[in-house]
Amino acid sequence: MSKLYDIIDFNHTFVQNKEFEKYRTTKFPDRKMVILTCMDTRLIELLPQAMGLKNGDVKIIKNAGAIVSHPFGSIMRSILVAIYELNAEEICVIGHHDCGMTGLHSSSMLDKIKDYGISQEHINILNHAGVDLGKWLTGFENVIEAVINSVKMIQNHPLLSKSIPVHGLIIHPETGKLDWVVNGYSHTQK
Amino acid sequence: MSKLYDIIDFNHTFVQNKEFEKYRTTKFPDRKMVILTCMDTRLIELLPQAMGLKNGDVKIIKNAGAIVSHPFGSIMRSILVAIYELNAEEICVIGHHDCGMTGLHSSSMLDKIKDYGISQEHINILNHAGVDLGKWLTGFENVIEAVINSVKMIQNHPLLSKSIPVHGLIIHPETGKLDWVVNGYSHTQK
Repeated sequence: MSKLYDIIDFNHTFVQNKEFEKYRTTKFPDRKMVILTCMDTRLIELLPQAMGLKNGDVKIIKNAGAIVSHPFGSIMRSILVAIYELNAEEICVIGHHDCGMTGLHSSSMLDKIKDYGISQEHINILNHAGVDLGKWLTGFENVIEAVINSVKMIQNHPLLSKSIPVHGLIIHPETGKLDWVVNGYSHTQK
Repeated sequence: MSKLYDIIDFNHTFVQNKEFEKYRTTKFPDRKMVILTCMDTRLIELLPQAMGLKNGDVKIIKNAGAIVSHPFGSIMRSILVAIYELNAEEICVIGHHDCGMTGLHSSSMLDKIKDYGISQEHINILNHAGVDLGKWLTGFENVIEAVINSVKMIQNHPLLSKSIPVHGLIIHPETGKLDWVVNGYSHTQK
């Protein structure tokens, strides 16, 4: 249990050697885009590299599955902040094949949670308090449908201007190949 | 309005030249860590580089401000999926200085939303429907307090095992320097 100590040691050397100098930029995205994609570990370097994106180019929002679950949750808030406060002009939702959220079922996840010592009694309390764990811990069956659903939720958001294109794409987690699922330019109102 | 066409063209060449080969890895994070950080554009390359993280090392979740706003929202779900489904063993919340969420006020953001053509009538409908836009579109005053609040919400989550360390850190968006705010090892129960 000392992973973070190693990282802090590495960081000390990084700063001391001024290795940060090549990443200098401002907080406004040069390419005026905000991307919502998945937290998948294979995308950390692959997604920016496969899209030709550098430090300073875009805002990147990430969660499990690139899902907008709620119109007034923190993902949708982040998208609106990127557009209205940080000058982004386009939105891309980028799901990926072989996503951990594909086929995720609450029952198997709750079994793993119990293996870590969380009691069935605690789980029952949450369920009886109105938390729908069955729905909350269930992923999606099909990543293309999931991307389309998230694009629709963003496009139809009451606080998003119809002049902002909302695109949907799928990235291959090994090759970085992008497939365009929803072309936001065709839905945009001038 | 052709930003995405340029990116798709770039991507075609990236895949054709097999530039993806150096990023090959699996979906399980090698360093068994999940990081929640900010969508800030200055962190795209700087954060992984300043922590010595490569494709495949960790799961990275990102939103505006690295905030956990709701115990049953998509950020918290993503953290639980990383721990229970994808073998992460530690959690790091990493805020940063000069964050766009510091000092964000709903009134100035709503003014910008109206500049894009969203009417006051639409905004009134949302407010009268029980959506608290004033709270939702307001950031934080102090990034250290915000990180501590998010760490506490994760640590105290009813479905998170007390054996999982939850750390809080602040990264400098220009130098990448990490400051440790909450040491999760000292709160962990074996």
